[in-house]
Amino acid sequence: MTQLLLATRNAGKLAELQRLLATAVPGVEVLGLRDVPEYPEAPETGATFEENALLKAREAVRYTGLPSVADDSGIAVDALNGMPGILSARWSGRHGDDPANTALLLGQLADVPDDRRGAGFVCAAALVLPDGTERVLRREWRGVVVHEPRGTNGFGYDPVFLPDGLDRTSAELDAAEKDAVSHRGQAFAALLPVVQELLGG
Amino acid sequence: MTQLLLATRNAGKLAELQRLLATAVPGVEVLGLRDVPEYPEAPETGATFEENALLKAREAVRYTGLPSVADDSGIAVDALNGMPGILSARWSGRHGDDPANTALLLGQLADVPDDRRGAGFVCAAALVLPDGTERVLRREWRGVVVHEPRGTNGFGYDPVFLPDGLDRTSAELDAAEKDAVSHRGQAFAALLPVVQELLGG
Repeated sequence: MTQLLLATRNAGKLAELQRLLATAVPGVEVLGLRDVPEYPEAPETGATFEENALLKAREAVRYTGLPSVADDSGIAVDALNGMPGILSARWSGRHGDDPANTALLLGQLADVPDDRRGAGFVCAAALVLPDGTERVLRREWRGVVVHEPRGTNGFGYDPVFLPDGLDRTSAELDAAEKDAVSHRGQAFAALLPVVQELLGG
Repeated sequence: MTQLLLATRNAGKLAELQRLLATAVPGVEVLGLRDVPEYPEAPETGATFEENALLKAREAVRYTGLPSVADDSGIAVDALNGMPGILSARWSGRHGDDPANTALLLGQLADVPDDRRGAGFVCAAALVLPDGTERVLRREWRGVVVHEPRGTNGFGYDPVFLPDGLDRTSAELDAAEKDAVSHRGQAFAALLPVVQELLGG
């Protein structure tokens, strides 16, 4: 059976990506980094979501020899010129501290009026094969940053992101609802045919 | 004697601006907000440095009836798409907490390599007269963000800003050295002829 590695350590992302990929590509076993002993810390030195997704997928191929998928995601806030962007997970200076990152973002936007609180959840998804084949694509999910966190699903900035056209934050959507419309759902839906074409055929 | 109001509460800025303006415009007495009892909190709801400088100067004219000068300044970091920008003073979510703001910026840039740490100190300076005449201009001082604070002069992000062509941070320059080259020095030097033309003649 062909194996495909999802190159992420983030438990929330891994659950989302496995959910999206595992059943959609028959005949492919989807592994996470939990299945790879002593995997080194992946680099995130790119200047864009796409670069970082490719860096992570390349590193995973180099270390495991397996076809690898990686994503880089974040929230791009209009009033912050698109930041936190690629720094979303370490916005407060503490990597992966969701409450601190979210509290900081709300503090920075405290005086920003409602008509200037637009934002996009952005996801770049990359597939890299051992033969050097590379694909990367990007999707965005538009909405606004609300003033107080709402909801307990998801992770990251989900509790403060109100998607356009919905009356619940991303953290108030259940997993299936979120996958159907989210940046990551869109990006991986778009990547699936590529995975199928390159691995499943 | 004509009076001119410097509409700032920031002690560091006030000292700089008074130093720059007081002797340069003969016959004009330069007041600070400390001289205006119960001055209300000025709005900073603009989307640009120029808008905020004009808002502050207009508010000062409205409240005092005096010709008023105001500035809005901050650091625009390339790797943060020009942020903290107009949010520089409240970047950590706590307005005016220089150590917290600086520590946060360094944390956000921790993984950003030296060749991508370019930044500019930006100053917009506005003059508003009681008759509605308005002038605003903007100057930038380029440099890089260093990895550790150095120096004790100045305020704000001075300790982590290394100006292009210098080997000392902005906080290691003395006041006269800084005024001669800084964003604020440049902006107020450019505003002085306007003040002289509109008030001194």
